[in-house]
Amino acid sequence: MQQKRIAAAQELMQANGIDALLILTHDDYIYFFDEDRFQPRAIIPQKGQPVIICSRGEEKEIRDGLGAQEVRVFATVGQQMHEVVGIMQGLQSGLGRPPTIGVQFWFETPAVLLQLFQQANPQVKVVDSAPVMDTLRIVKSPQELALMQEAARIAERGMQAAVQAIRPGVTENEVAAEAIYAMRKAGASGTAVPVFVNSGVRSLWIHGTATAKAIERGDLVVIGLVPVFRGYCVDLTRVAVVGEPTDAQRRLFDTYLAAQQAAIEAVRPGVPVSELDKAAEAVVKDAGFGEHYVKGMGHGIGLRFEETPAPTIQPKHASVELQEGMTIAVGHPILAVPGIGGVRLEDTGLVAAAGWQGITAYPKELFIRT
Amino acid sequence: MQQKRIAAAQELMQANGIDALLILTHDDYIYFFDEDRFQPRAIIPQKGQPVIICSRGEEKEIRDGLGAQEVRVFATVGQQMHEVVGIMQGLQSGLGRPPTIGVQFWFETPAVLLQLFQQANPQVKVVDSAPVMDTLRIVKSPQELALMQEAARIAERGMQAAVQAIRPGVTENEVAAEAIYAMRKAGASGTAVPVFVNSGVRSLWIHGTATAKAIERGDLVVIGLVPVFRGYCVDLTRVAVVGEPTDAQRRLFDTYLAAQQAAIEAVRPGVPVSELDKAAEAVVKDAGFGEHYVKGMGHGIGLRFEETPAPTIQPKHASVELQEGMTIAVGHPILAVPGIGGVRLEDTGLVAAAGWQGITAYPKELFIRT
Repeated sequence: MQQKRIAAAQELMQANGIDALLILTHDDYIYFFDEDRFQPRAIIPQKGQPVIICSRGEEKEIRDGLGAQEVRVFATVGQQMHEVVGIMQGLQSGLGRPPTIGVQFWFETPAVLLQLFQQANPQVKVVDSAPVMDTLRIVKSPQELALMQEAARIAERGMQAAVQAIRPGVTENEVAAEAIYAMRKAGASGTAVPVFVNSGVRSLWIHGTATAKAIERGDLVVIGLVPVFRGYCVDLTRVAVVGEPTDAQRRLFDTYLAAQQAAIEAVRPGVPVSELDKAAEAVVKDAGFGEHYVKGMGHGIGLRFEETPAPTIQPKHASVELQEGMTIAVGHPILAVPGIGGVRLEDTGLVAAAGWQGITAYPKELFIRT
Repeated sequence: MQQKRIAAAQELMQANGIDALLILTHDDYIYFFDEDRFQPRAIIPQKGQPVIICSRGEEKEIRDGLGAQEVRVFATVGQQMHEVVGIMQGLQSGLGRPPTIGVQFWFETPAVLLQLFQQANPQVKVVDSAPVMDTLRIVKSPQELALMQEAARIAERGMQAAVQAIRPGVTENEVAAEAIYAMRKAGASGTAVPVFVNSGVRSLWIHGTATAKAIERGDLVVIGLVPVFRGYCVDLTRVAVVGEPTDAQRRLFDTYLAAQQAAIEAVRPGVPVSELDKAAEAVVKDAGFGEHYVKGMGHGIGLRFEETPAPTIQPKHASVELQEGMTIAVGHPILAVPGIGGVRLEDTGLVAAAGWQGITAYPKELFIRT
């Protein structure tokens, strides 16, 4: 258990008027408890020890592993919520008023769980835990960086396997299979988002996946990998082309390469993350592809695939300033030009005093596969 | 596009006072549109054509593929929500009152998206879309069954690869890598939940994952696979043991085998899903493991890993009666006895007129690996 992080969270809870954190997501759970569960459930009160809620069979392992004193066990889901209600009532009687509970509002918190929680605890005020969690997590420790570096090594192995697997007639799924296998064998516990192998018309997608579509001669293929190592992830995206690229495909790729480089050169402490978009967009406009530019060149990354600042999800994050020690991904949005295809390069790096310091490292060329 | 399903949904919307469905999840999107997106977004009004919301680069592909007339494109996330707000306002002026919008309340609907939607459309009444979607989806068509049968063939290949990979010293991650690779190569687009390879003390977990833990002699290893084929999944879970099982391990496994069989024999149309638990629990009690029984022997499965009836998530589902044509998974909960280990068998089948008809098929033995 990360007692220092818990103590720091409790101080921030006090400063932000939050009586307890309700942890329902992997990222926050791993941050505090250094291990993962399929459905992590914990409550960290502003004062006192965290409470872990787990199934009966897991109790001993959790007590032994975490040295946790407060473990509430359940044998049915109804009982699990019953435990939570009991804890909320305990907080309320201690405080002499209904508690204010911080919850993560991001993609992983299921609407159904929050609804059940609010129905079972109607007196509780639910607020976004971001003022506590973002403050804690936005700058990475050396230990966290080491885990991201390991994730980067894994991503590079996956990319190599994916690029090698691409040839005419192979399906996107088969390419994804090779990348996933290589990353798992290299130690990944999975990927934070599905592996993207977007080929041909599918290279135009803003996001991605891998399908049963066969990769054909002339296709651009965007490969996006976000492997997870002990909870931490990096984003590495590259592009291949099957057969000799057309001039237009080559020019589109070169444009993205220059745009990503411009964004990387804009990275330094004190710069709002939106400056990365400005730098990249100028390059894309100069190349004549301006109308196809989609904003979102930079976002935070670490225990989540996208964490603060993530301006494509929370527009107000655009003004968040980069700080020394933050980890960001640069090169996020697709540059999709119907008739030509889509390209995207993405790398993960550290915001150092002197600027960008790459964490992922992989050749940045348009890989030609025949 | 599945026009008949859309028309049926529109009739049910009318009967349930829902003016439109807001589709934010893969399962409902695939059900109506026969394809998948990374972040599926659509609105199906009670009257008229569905509206698909997508990124600009995807517009042509969606229009060509779906024959969709109403496609709203966005270039930034802000614009995406802007499109949704415009559609809500259009609905409101057509109706002369604020619309009631049905949304899926389950694990995949992100709390953050629902919060953003409600903030941007405060006049809109959000209700659970289950009265429409469960009614439509609970009984499977022959086409849907065929996809689940294909998913079952994939699961069987994955299980074979996983069982073969288990030996002393190999990590859970390495076993998962083999299972995932085999399933991807067999056509899976992924898994609905992470592959479970729970060994030793981790076999006691109620859910699972695969970790860097090495599998050791004496470990029980629970392998749970939920591959997805064109959106549809099946659940197949088996148990291996490394080295000769102890008498207690053997007895625990035999108890689960008999309990699952009792639940399977209880399957027939008209029976509440809770009857499966009664049948299984009686067997477990007779064997002396009653205090370790966790309820949840049966749940719906199809486009979601757990769909209605799913009594471990929605307790009121316990009284849902099985119907001919439903697909269910039987054998869901872990039977975890500290000091011995955990065991679990799970299979997916069809509720036929005469009772259970298996979709997954794999030997049900305690696989001994040395």
